[in-house]
Amino acid sequence: MAPANKVNADLQREREKCTFNTTELTNLIDGGADKTEERKKREDMALKEGIHIEEVPAEYLSHKENYELAVKKACLLFKMIRKLQEEENTGMENYMAVLGGTLGSAILRDGSPLTLHYVMFIPTLMGQATVEQQAYWIGRAFNLDVVGTYAQTELGHGTFVRGLETTATYDPATKEFVLHSPTLTSYKWWPGGLAHTANYCIVMAQLYTKGKCHGIHPFIVQLRDEETHMPMPGIKVGEIGAKLGMNGTNNGFLGFEHVRIPREHMLMKNSKVLEDGTYVNAPSSKLTYGTMMFVRVVIVQDMCTYMAKAVTIATRYSAVRRQSQPKPDEPEPQIIDYVTQQHKLFVGIASVHAFRLSAQWLWTMYNNVTAELEAGDLDRLPELHALACCLKAVSTADAAECVERCRLACGGHGYMLSSNLPLMYGLVTAACTYEGENTVLLLQTARYLVKAWQQAAGGNALTPTVSYLANSAVGRRHPPWDNTIEGIILGFQRVAASKISLCVENIERRQKSGMSYEDAWNMTSVQLTSASEAHCRAILLSCYLEETLKSVKEASPALREVMMQLVDLYIVYWALRCVGDLLRFTSISERDIAQLQSWYESLLTQLRPNAVGLVDAFDLRDEILHSTLGAYDGRVYERLMEEAMKSPLNKEPVNQSFHKYLKPFMQGKL
Amino acid sequence: MAPANKVNADLQREREKCTFNTTELTNLIDGGADKTEERKKREDMALKEGIHIEEVPAEYLSHKENYELAVKKACLLFKMIRKLQEEENTGMENYMAVLGGTLGSAILRDGSPLTLHYVMFIPTLMGQATVEQQAYWIGRAFNLDVVGTYAQTELGHGTFVRGLETTATYDPATKEFVLHSPTLTSYKWWPGGLAHTANYCIVMAQLYTKGKCHGIHPFIVQLRDEETHMPMPGIKVGEIGAKLGMNGTNNGFLGFEHVRIPREHMLMKNSKVLEDGTYVNAPSSKLTYGTMMFVRVVIVQDMCTYMAKAVTIATRYSAVRRQSQPKPDEPEPQIIDYVTQQHKLFVGIASVHAFRLSAQWLWTMYNNVTAELEAGDLDRLPELHALACCLKAVSTADAAECVERCRLACGGHGYMLSSNLPLMYGLVTAACTYEGENTVLLLQTARYLVKAWQQAAGGNALTPTVSYLANSAVGRRHPPWDNTIEGIILGFQRVAASKISLCVENIERRQKSGMSYEDAWNMTSVQLTSASEAHCRAILLSCYLEETLKSVKEASPALREVMMQLVDLYIVYWALRCVGDLLRFTSISERDIAQLQSWYESLLTQLRPNAVGLVDAFDLRDEILHSTLGAYDGRVYERLMEEAMKSPLNKEPVNQSFHKYLKPFMQGKL
Repeated sequence: MAPANKVNADLQREREKCTFNTTELTNLIDGGADKTEERKKREDMALKEGIHIEEVPAEYLSHKENYELAVKKACLLFKMIRKLQEEENTGMENYMAVLGGTLGSAILRDGSPLTLHYVMFIPTLMGQATVEQQAYWIGRAFNLDVVGTYAQTELGHGTFVRGLETTATYDPATKEFVLHSPTLTSYKWWPGGLAHTANYCIVMAQLYTKGKCHGIHPFIVQLRDEETHMPMPGIKVGEIGAKLGMNGTNNGFLGFEHVRIPREHMLMKNSKVLEDGTYVNAPSSKLTYGTMMFVRVVIVQDMCTYMAKAVTIATRYSAVRRQSQPKPDEPEPQIIDYVTQQHKLFVGIASVHAFRLSAQWLWTMYNNVTAELEAGDLDRLPELHALACCLKAVSTADAAECVERCRLACGGHGYMLSSNLPLMYGLVTAACTYEGENTVLLLQTARYLVKAWQQAAGGNALTPTVSYLANSAVGRRHPPWDNTIEGIILGFQRVAASKISLCVENIERRQKSGMSYEDAWNMTSVQLTSASEAHCRAILLSCYLEETLKSVKEASPALREVMMQLVDLYIVYWALRCVGDLLRFTSISERDIAQLQSWYESLLTQLRPNAVGLVDAFDLRDEILHSTLGAYDGRVYERLMEEAMKSPLNKEPVNQSFHKYLKPFMQGKL
Repeated sequence: MAPANKVNADLQREREKCTFNTTELTNLIDGGADKTEERKKREDMALKEGIHIEEVPAEYLSHKENYELAVKKACLLFKMIRKLQEEENTGMENYMAVLGGTLGSAILRDGSPLTLHYVMFIPTLMGQATVEQQAYWIGRAFNLDVVGTYAQTELGHGTFVRGLETTATYDPATKEFVLHSPTLTSYKWWPGGLAHTANYCIVMAQLYTKGKCHGIHPFIVQLRDEETHMPMPGIKVGEIGAKLGMNGTNNGFLGFEHVRIPREHMLMKNSKVLEDGTYVNAPSSKLTYGTMMFVRVVIVQDMCTYMAKAVTIATRYSAVRRQSQPKPDEPEPQIIDYVTQQHKLFVGIASVHAFRLSAQWLWTMYNNVTAELEAGDLDRLPELHALACCLKAVSTADAAECVERCRLACGGHGYMLSSNLPLMYGLVTAACTYEGENTVLLLQTARYLVKAWQQAAGGNALTPTVSYLANSAVGRRHPPWDNTIEGIILGFQRVAASKISLCVENIERRQKSGMSYEDAWNMTSVQLTSASEAHCRAILLSCYLEETLKSVKEASPALREVMMQLVDLYIVYWALRCVGDLLRFTSISERDIAQLQSWYESLLTQLRPNAVGLVDAFDLRDEILHSTLGAYDGRVYERLMEEAMKSPLNKEPVNQSFHKYLKPFMQGKL
């Protein structure tokens, strides 16, 4: 057992046998040694204030106390961000990026009631307000004269935005909009910070003017008095109740009883309502896609962070934990020596890199397409949209699976909140639903793929990320199976193409038998989601390989070797997991499969000595991991006991319920 | 929108179009109309006391308040059970079965601190105490003169029982055992009720006498003073802290500092220590397997209940929720009309029946084997053990997946604690770890399968549940693929046999290359768990078909038809999900697969009108479901709002944190 400040001996031994320089990998991940230094400096600054320290761990507080703590911490965090920004005279975004992300989530572990002010209220003003509106609102928002949020989702409608029911009806007599909630289902439901924190809100509502509905538009509405914070007349606002996670975000509901706001409170950068009620259309409705796609790229990055945290915790724990005795004359092995455990962990390490590099690649593409958009070129927008949809869906699903697999790999101790794995799962699984429900998103990608397939079959050129469909679509012969990394990637492309082809066939067959296109689509939709996922897997595998090859060009041979082992592991893992697809649509043989299985097992063995080094290189501080099982020093059992002692129940030897209930019950006097 | 007491119109319509009599199915599930009536009567009795009613929902209380509420509720529940037992003069077990199970979990939603007294403390006394010990202890335990628990797992060891470190050393001078915790990792950790509830405990410890260790044995130890409830000298006891779920169970830790107990406090039905310290061995150590296997059978049944709850909630919600507009001139469809949604839900309905019937079948086998055991026949014990291991592992993993899929199928609202789905997931996923970690259990089954394979290859006879291995093991030719339900089951048997065969080959190959058997086993263990799961799937599919055929013999044609559709759905679903295995090891063709896919899609369509009827037939009352989304009347949105209003945060228009933190922060004065 390791005393305080001493590293667990098993973990120490793991670090000694690591074959590469973990700092080199950390720098590679950060994008250079200077970036690593900068990040560490900011972490130091942020943590030295001690905002993250919890006297009583949050899990012992009531829901209400947790909200109050979250408001306190959020105010202190953003105060610090403002201070740093003023000191260094740099843009707020710089600090938001660092402190609002990984570090912010270390301080506000279960979400922040001020996040939407910074990530939705202000950006929406910047994107959708006119210059005059920006002049008035953005200063006030940055200065925190107002605290805002963004309300779109309703009790009755989420991903299907067109179905929202809140109305904003223009009254030319008073030059006001009347906001109203015609039904219970039209109540806004979910916006963070809405319940008791924000005093202003951007509300998405169906715009009516001159008796006609013009669809969803944004309006600024005052929710609470700036002085007293009391809800304004006609505003019904409160919180939606306890959730699986994110209980610090203060998610709220909001209903309107004929609430009047001045005409100038409609955000009119795109569409406008003139004083007389005339509606002037937006130049292009595609412009609003930008934010949505940006958020989805950010989600993919977020998922990498969560997976990195989870595998760090589970890998370190697996090096410390010893269990069972397969050989009677030898000590209990570290559980990381069990191949079933390696199978659970190592693909998680590889996944972090696969999604990290894919997110970077998508980010570059997003910036290119945005630049093209601003130059009036909308060509690659549908392709980007299709990619962002499926990558959001697959990354969130994979991250949820990875975090949960890591949690279960820690056995009973992973079930303790002090491991931090349950809380993390709560946050990751939320992402499977928010910002576009995953099944809906996969079907959006599928719609693009079906179109692309039909274009290719018609001999038309395809955009880069779907160009692999061309060969299949025109019925060209495929090369025989090649049992290499490159061969597997080609195989995955072939699987995706074949699945899309089958979907198109099935839809057409069903239409011929008399179904409408919509019904034929619906009947085929299970297969369509599967085709969409297959497309995403093909992209992920090739992107991971290509981007790794680029990024390790300058790396030391030792690091390059490990990075390539991870790529191999990831790709072989997915080949074995999707072996049914490969058998259906390529010429892979049983002999090839047996070889892949042996290859996979030997990759696990090769990676085994570097496992702890690989997670150390993610360089996630103890304050960020916040885990009894995953701390750098491996004092697992000591920390479990220390954390247990923080429970308020352990502050008294006898709980009052003994005298109140248990003893009377035992004596038959209850 | 439905007013109170009126059923949602969509749900009403679903019930009208159901093609079978739901009461007939309820009776079939309960085992007869009289059993249904009896169950309902007990539910009425239990619920009329109102113990289940929470003024403030538990999710708004602090951890400590939740414990105190759990003690109160547990005392009231067991008081009621005692009363009923006395009134009807029947065995306590009768009431425990009903009230401790589904109903108990409706009252103590997040676990009970008294459960282990009834399900482990008393049964262990009955199974392992001598007649004299039973005479002294069992009366006291039933009478609640003592509240007990059972402590086995330690901080450092769980599933691997031999590794436990707590010692009980016999001192012949005083005729006492000295209990001691030599290390931090030897502290007991996890037992329910241990922290602040129980005053006695059965402790599993390494028995030392005359300088020799005789392995793990049970001892009764007093933890707390019977009057004051203060911990006894040398006893270190407390709670282990907050967890993902089961926060009502009061899981505790326990350490000993040379605590002395009389010799008579060792439970000596099996092994004994005489006054002089002589150790007398147990007649058969296999006898203690009984309880462990019993618990695993109960877990499979539990998993059925959780799945039934989850699919009931998600199916009803999916009939009420309307979303999107695939056809511009039609209203938004109920989301249950999306085939992707049917794909998520209907297999869950089938799974309930598949596991319910498999659990019944295993229960019968358990009783037969126990009877044989008592007659001294141990032949079928290993087979039963292998089955209980893999069925526990597969049922808990499938149930966790099913509950989580149902939760995600409810979109954002499934994330609300008021849906009850998150809490349910917390309880189900715990079962993947407790009572034998799933991967470890699958490997135990694999060990049995490898032995069976080697027996069969040697031409020896096999026990019934593995007899299907015989043909493959002696290299007999297999019939060609038959694309029917029976054909699929044969295919799954072939897959299991082939996987076991491959494992045996790989282990032997590795041994020949110089590895020890243990290392070869470890290297092959990913494949071994997969073989073990394949065996379990083959059993489940054939058991589900056969037991359904038996159980619907007397059923009406309408019910029989639906029950068989569910069997077909389940088996075709698994064929498609494991299509890679079927392609590898059988002669299934691409054409067969396309047919299965169409068959699957048409089964979804056939089951669609009966979906709500099928979940109604599980007959889970609103008090048991405890869900805003799943209540019988479908008042989903009204209930979500009503529950939200119960949040303490919604009791005040302005939270104090505004004046304390937010306003000062906004004014730059924080």
